[in-house]
Amino acid sequence: MSRQVVMLCGGVGGARLAHGMYHALSQDELTLIVNTGDDFEHWGLQICPDLDTVMYSLADLAPVERGWGLETESFEALDMVKRYGGEDWFALGDRDLATHLMRSQRLREGHSLTSVTQGLASSLGVHCSLLPMSDDSCASVLMTEDWGPLSFQQWFVKHQAKPTVRDISWAYGANASVQVQEALAAADLVVIAPSNPYVSIDPILQLPKMDNLLERPTVIAVSPIVHGEAVKGPLAQMIRDLSGQAPSPAAVARHYGECLDAMIMESGEPSDALSVQSLRTSTIMKTRDDSRRLADRILEFTESSLK
Amino acid sequence: MSRQVVMLCGGVGGARLAHGMYHALSQDELTLIVNTGDDFEHWGLQICPDLDTVMYSLADLAPVERGWGLETESFEALDMVKRYGGEDWFALGDRDLATHLMRSQRLREGHSLTSVTQGLASSLGVHCSLLPMSDDSCASVLMTEDWGPLSFQQWFVKHQAKPTVRDISWAYGANASVQVQEALAAADLVVIAPSNPYVSIDPILQLPKMDNLLERPTVIAVSPIVHGEAVKGPLAQMIRDLSGQAPSPAAVARHYGECLDAMIMESGEPSDALSVQSLRTSTIMKTRDDSRRLADRILEFTESSLK
Repeated sequence: MSRQVVMLCGGVGGARLAHGMYHALSQDELTLIVNTGDDFEHWGLQICPDLDTVMYSLADLAPVERGWGLETESFEALDMVKRYGGEDWFALGDRDLATHLMRSQRLREGHSLTSVTQGLASSLGVHCSLLPMSDDSCASVLMTEDWGPLSFQQWFVKHQAKPTVRDISWAYGANASVQVQEALAAADLVVIAPSNPYVSIDPILQLPKMDNLLERPTVIAVSPIVHGEAVKGPLAQMIRDLSGQAPSPAAVARHYGECLDAMIMESGEPSDALSVQSLRTSTIMKTRDDSRRLADRILEFTESSLK
Repeated sequence: MSRQVVMLCGGVGGARLAHGMYHALSQDELTLIVNTGDDFEHWGLQICPDLDTVMYSLADLAPVERGWGLETESFEALDMVKRYGGEDWFALGDRDLATHLMRSQRLREGHSLTSVTQGLASSLGVHCSLLPMSDDSCASVLMTEDWGPLSFQQWFVKHQAKPTVRDISWAYGANASVQVQEALAAADLVVIAPSNPYVSIDPILQLPKMDNLLERPTVIAVSPIVHGEAVKGPLAQMIRDLSGQAPSPAAVARHYGECLDAMIMESGEPSDALSVQSLRTSTIMKTRDDSRRLADRILEFTESSLK
């Protein structure tokens, strides 16, 4: 029986689960909707970190442990950029540069980010539907305590996620692409990856019409918080700063609110604070096998226990 | 006594003599005016092959024997561009890419090519005046027999200089930059490098006001033809195709016409067909020492024998 599964993804956590889903499902059953709130311009090129992390992962070009970038990479261009006094706080590798060059060139020729992404992914042998959340630019703006408004990369890379974030916002006017809207309209199941809810998933959820599109399908989230800590990145502190709560799967579930039907969380997590169904299983993905096992477990759970 | 020397340069031949002049003169005595007729866009970046060849050479980053590109270079980005189905007929190295990235970014920010070039050169420790001939785009259009109009790089690299060239033209509207005009107005001596007259020097000479600017200073050319052959590249055949003459220093001198005061040519060349003064010396530059010796010889000759 064919089912339409849509995943909402950020970077590394999204890419890991995406890899499992990509192999658990046939390619026409899976659509990945990827955060572009982190996108920025660097060295005159359009950089889409989350899209690339997911694409490289599905193409088996990403280092499994680190999760982002390309496994085999050199930094000759960066070295020369430094000689020219160019910006060097964001390290673009030589092979990675090709992605940004081709993307930027095709965007300037007038192609949409959706079509450019599909072309790049297809060249790397990735054949499921890999969609940027929007063809419009809609960067996250992080309002920080000491540094004022910062883009995600300025905050995360340049300032090493140190400034306290008080609020996150997006400019009005960006829309989910037609392809994103169609995928959600046809979805049986929407899986929210174990990505950062504030900077990876909210940029997708805040787009117009998203609430409506998420009403019909079953929506489950995989908790990016395990035993009070973020699996990766600065999420635990952000939950404390932005919600005033202790970091927990329940805090994440409350953040997603009414659209959520179930929560997947690590074995041993208490489920008593949850108002939705839950599955406790091993959610840490260190290997490709871990990713596949979690994907299988999620699909099994949603078919047997939900509906 | 300070003298103002201006060199008109193409790529490798120009870069070799430029290196000699750069060390024979103090940095405020030398201005290099470089052909931009070969410039083109590739991978969405603005590529200026002759400017880079001269700049890398003066910065001692170019391989002396090959003459162009960077001595230490890798091609990781190119390899990945091929995977994406991008254009791969023009090989951009990883370190070289940094130059095109920084240039393109600064041009898009609104800086002139003159100012961008000065910035890049200065970062690499090149401190003489290195000027693109123009801030306007003015690509050479080569009318070929079998392939119609081609850009220089399409003809030279993509088609390996094989299509017979019948005519070369430039779009109207480009002007020599103010800095180029001022340098020529202040010049005591103008040296035309041993570059291809048709595709490296004519793009400079055809700019408006050039005839007037070259009337006052002493103008000498170094022959790129030695004993009937081009030192490098397809020039010998072009002279046959475009002028119907046998390739010789005299044919080059006739091509430059009235602006020319003297011709520097290889020892042993006959000078009887020349209507201008001449110096016969060793003009082949295989080493840095050869370049310096030729530069010294030219400066000595122009001071002792001319005027």
